[in-house]
Amino acid sequence: MAIISKSYPSVAVTVDLVLMTVCDARLVVLLQRRQQEPFVGCLALPGSFVGPEEDLDRAARRVLAEKVGLTEAWLEQLYSFGDPGRDPRMRTVSIAYFALLAAERLHAAVAGRKGLTLMSVDEHEAPLAFDHDAIVALSRERLRGKLSHSPVALALLPDLFTLRDLQMVHEVILGASLNKPAFRRRMLDSGWIEGTGEKESAGAFRPAELFRKRDRHQS
Amino acid sequence: MAIISKSYPSVAVTVDLVLMTVCDARLVVLLQRRQQEPFVGCLALPGSFVGPEEDLDRAARRVLAEKVGLTEAWLEQLYSFGDPGRDPRMRTVSIAYFALLAAERLHAAVAGRKGLTLMSVDEHEAPLAFDHDAIVALSRERLRGKLSHSPVALALLPDLFTLRDLQMVHEVILGASLNKPAFRRRMLDSGWIEGTGEKESAGAFRPAELFRKRDRHQS
Repeated sequence: MAIISKSYPSVAVTVDLVLMTVCDARLVVLLQRRQQEPFVGCLALPGSFVGPEEDLDRAARRVLAEKVGLTEAWLEQLYSFGDPGRDPRMRTVSIAYFALLAAERLHAAVAGRKGLTLMSVDEHEAPLAFDHDAIVALSRERLRGKLSHSPVALALLPDLFTLRDLQMVHEVILGASLNKPAFRRRMLDSGWIEGTGEKESAGAFRPAELFRKRDRHQS
Repeated sequence: MAIISKSYPSVAVTVDLVLMTVCDARLVVLLQRRQQEPFVGCLALPGSFVGPEEDLDRAARRVLAEKVGLTEAWLEQLYSFGDPGRDPRMRTVSIAYFALLAAERLHAAVAGRKGLTLMSVDEHEAPLAFDHDAIVALSRERLRGKLSHSPVALALLPDLFTLRDLQMVHEVILGASLNKPAFRRRMLDSGWIEGTGEKESAGAFRPAELFRKRDRHQS
């Protein structure tokens, strides 16, 4: 075994989590202040080395629980980053996982853990540790690509929401304004959402209909 | 460095290539007969350990050149596979790369290299080495998902093609028949293709218009 190991370049494998939400009309990402070298004091994505007998998905869920305090989230493997110079300690390959969460959940996570913070994807304290700026940038790009063909933005909203709420999160992610009638038509045609017949309670706007995510098994 | 290395679980990182095409109305994948243990004699995806100073994308392109003999192909990182039991030698993480190629190119590659073969994704000699069946299955699933929102299937066709050709590759990938008028309308509306005004040479069918991929910069 020792001989075999020597004949293959040895790498340390890590997982890093990109947890995003929309808050105050900005796309934000959860970051953690590093307590140790390398990049001590810098902000970084929460991450960990993968254990010797640990599956990659399991390692990602462990980081979510241990470093963020969340157990329920739909984590999706995003991309693997393996530039030979990405870690000054040794050769590492990081497998990035991505999740969108409702703002309240990430706010609660940040309130409960020292060292965690939410930063705007566009204007955070730069640069992040390692190649984490590149990981965040790719996450944003993937998210933009997914918006047009998947109901991914619904993960950012509470169970009941208005089409105005849904348009706002789309606009924040895309960084662009959308035509209201065309957006509404596209969402209603998508099959991703359904009206509840209920109206929101009166607020700054004329009360609008509340929608919910459509059960995939109903189609 | 030795001390640091000991404190992190060491992993060997590999890249594996999933090169697919449509041939004789079947979705096929390029496989290689393994000449050494483990899984000697089994079919496997072409792959390699990543070199100590080698970027992941570069390793994938090296495998494409060295093991398949191709230098031009749009390789896309697909997914990383890291089940602790996936390799009997040691802990390995494989980063799978995916590409669709025109059938003639893969046929030429197979003709030029001993040990390479094209096998149907559905009915190949099973099981493949390592977890390569799972890698192929995920590739197929991703490809199906991409068909509806990207011009990925055009990579399987020659520069000039008919809508009949395009529908055929869609049907093979999806494993289902498509409604001809609806398919044609969707493709013409997609902005991915444009008519050439030319007709195919007469064959078994009434000569149909030839289309080509639309230049992305023209929109």
